[in-house]
Amino acid sequence: MKKLMLALVGVTLAASAAAQMKPEEAIKFRQSAYATMAWNMHRIKDNVEGKYNKDEVIKAANVIQSIANSGMGALYLPGTDKGKGWVETRVKPELFKAENKEKVGKIATDFNREANEMAKVAATGDAAATKAQFEKLGGSCKACHDDFRTKE
Amino acid sequence: MKKLMLALVGVTLAASAAAQMKPEEAIKFRQSAYATMAWNMHRIKDNVEGKYNKDEVIKAANVIQSIANSGMGALYLPGTDKGKGWVETRVKPELFKAENKEKVGKIATDFNREANEMAKVAATGDAAATKAQFEKLGGSCKACHDDFRTKE
Repeated sequence: MKKLMLALVGVTLAASAAAQMKPEEAIKFRQSAYATMAWNMHRIKDNVEGKYNKDEVIKAANVIQSIANSGMGALYLPGTDKGKGWVETRVKPELFKAENKEKVGKIATDFNREANEMAKVAATGDAAATKAQFEKLGGSCKACHDDFRTKE
Repeated sequence: MKKLMLALVGVTLAASAAAQMKPEEAIKFRQSAYATMAWNMHRIKDNVEGKYNKDEVIKAANVIQSIANSGMGALYLPGTDKGKGWVETRVKPELFKAENKEKVGKIATDFNREANEMAKVAATGDAAATKAQFEKLGGSCKACHDDFRTKE
């Protein structure tokens, strides 16, 4: 019984923390975090396709890694399957459906793994390995875009 | 002469890299990075004012640190003293003026130092120290907002 009560308190606290953030804020923060990662993906791309600057790739990979590990799932609050942050969200309602929980979880885990690996590879300064890992990381982004983001 | 030519090549390459990014993209990426940091500042604040979750504070501080060290200066391209990213930029043209270069440099250095310190303190899990460092970090954000960002 004590366990159940503690569990219920936990749920209440979580709900109350979530309640502090408005849906439009959560969507705005999501869009901001993805755009910040996009900026840094572009930087890595520019480096592997042009003049390779190890330090710049490390900085960019570190940003992507930290955001990938930040716990962005907390920004997918109930009620944020539609609505406007900076702009209208492009998430598909399917992302929130219980039947897709496992698939979404795998996509998130794959993305985290590739982002962590990207930071490791960037630290070595190996341009060819960076290029290969950049493509794997990009693929892990695309997996979500393909299934859970509307086309522009 | 060779030195001068190399210097000129350097300038040309920098200009060409900068030319790849449109002013509106640079402004959008800037706004996104600041909003991503704002999300994570809110998270640290919630933790020091409420129930302290060490892991969440570490994640949040790591995001702020990586963005602080990402080289956002590259997003302050010529021609981005006004214009629209997600929304109209709030930067004051004063930020770009040669006479303020030293002041802006100090603000950026202070912010970097406090963000790096924030990540170190977060890793200790010491809630009181986190609170103190969070305030110092916030102060370093405010220094720029006071002088170089328009009021809403």
